[in-house]
Amino acid sequence: MIPNHPFRPAPLIARDRLLEAGVKLVRQHGFAATSVDQLCGEAGVTKGAFFHHFASKEALGVALADYWSSSTGQFFAAAPFHQHADPLDRVLGYIDLRIALISGPAETFSCVAGTMVQEAFRSSDPIRSACNSSILGNAAALEDDLAAALARSGASGVTAASLSRHIQAVIQGAFVLAKAAGPADSAAAAREHLLHLRRYLELLLAGEMIHAD
Amino acid sequence: MIPNHPFRPAPLIARDRLLEAGVKLVRQHGFAATSVDQLCGEAGVTKGAFFHHFASKEALGVALADYWSSSTGQFFAAAPFHQHADPLDRVLGYIDLRIALISGPAETFSCVAGTMVQEAFRSSDPIRSACNSSILGNAAALEDDLAAALARSGASGVTAASLSRHIQAVIQGAFVLAKAAGPADSAAAAREHLLHLRRYLELLLAGEMIHAD
Repeated sequence: MIPNHPFRPAPLIARDRLLEAGVKLVRQHGFAATSVDQLCGEAGVTKGAFFHHFASKEALGVALADYWSSSTGQFFAAAPFHQHADPLDRVLGYIDLRIALISGPAETFSCVAGTMVQEAFRSSDPIRSACNSSILGNAAALEDDLAAALARSGASGVTAASLSRHIQAVIQGAFVLAKAAGPADSAAAAREHLLHLRRYLELLLAGEMIHAD
Repeated sequence: MIPNHPFRPAPLIARDRLLEAGVKLVRQHGFAATSVDQLCGEAGVTKGAFFHHFASKEALGVALADYWSSSTGQFFAAAPFHQHADPLDRVLGYIDLRIALISGPAETFSCVAGTMVQEAFRSSDPIRSACNSSILGNAAALEDDLAAALARSGASGVTAASLSRHIQAVIQGAFVLAKAAGPADSAAAAREHLLHLRRYLELLLAGEMIHAD
């Protein structure tokens, strides 16, 4: 399943239909501006079905972060960049894949967890925590490759864990500037930050600076 | 006026009191979750006063992005880092000031424009555009210093305009991860990304890589 594809197939099960509706509506309008009625309308299910699956809108928010985490996590885990022999090539392959996934208006490539946590971090600790796990889960998936690339580079004062979180921070920031740029310029506005991130990783990890002679 | 201070003095004029209420409530809960009633309550003004100054909640949102832009712009324009003789020192001085402003929970140092645009980019083009101007205004203020530092470094394939936007993108992303980390860990979670950004700027602009011998 392609996490950023604007037209993912509609699931058959009501719970999954509500979660897919959540992906679409939160990307478009955020969490607070999305009502239970709108989620039901988008999913084509009754309000009774909603409350059969979720005790509250907050419970849907928590499940949505987990669902997002799991579907994007599976996509990135199965991606071909893991096959590169060199750890830095694997890290740069991940960045290149993230760049390739950016196209169209921001709501087709933005992050559900990053959007929800921006508004709900203070009003719902369960949603904040689920969004944090989603973002840090993406970060952790690159940590071993970053550790191997860091060890070889000789770079000091940087940990693989911190660098893995930084990759996700730049991606989140790229999405904020993409939204600000407007629909016609969103993709280019997001991509340029991934390219800066790629350059940072190369400067830090390719070792030219350390080993130049 | 310190843009990130949680207890800025309450202005005397109703319009400014509403805008300060907007700064506080949008930072805490986002734009969609903040009602006109809550803005009036926080500002201590009547709903009549609100609609005397703003035709709608959207009009307040646009004015809020402009107000944020203007108050933070004045603060950074007056900051001592501009006095450094070296352009790279001025750029790093800006980053160090941004790092110094990060403390406490995320709602005391986060960005009003970045938060609003995350939700409202699609529902209100006037708000999106005002937030974009706010973020890009901060970026533009560093562009001349970045151009001077870039010219001296010999780095190629990077423009000062793109790099100035990247600084703001990393700051926005740092705030998203800070919110996700929770109140006790927000400040540390934000700071680490500003430190990565500082390292990128040094690697790119200090010229060690280019001029190492």
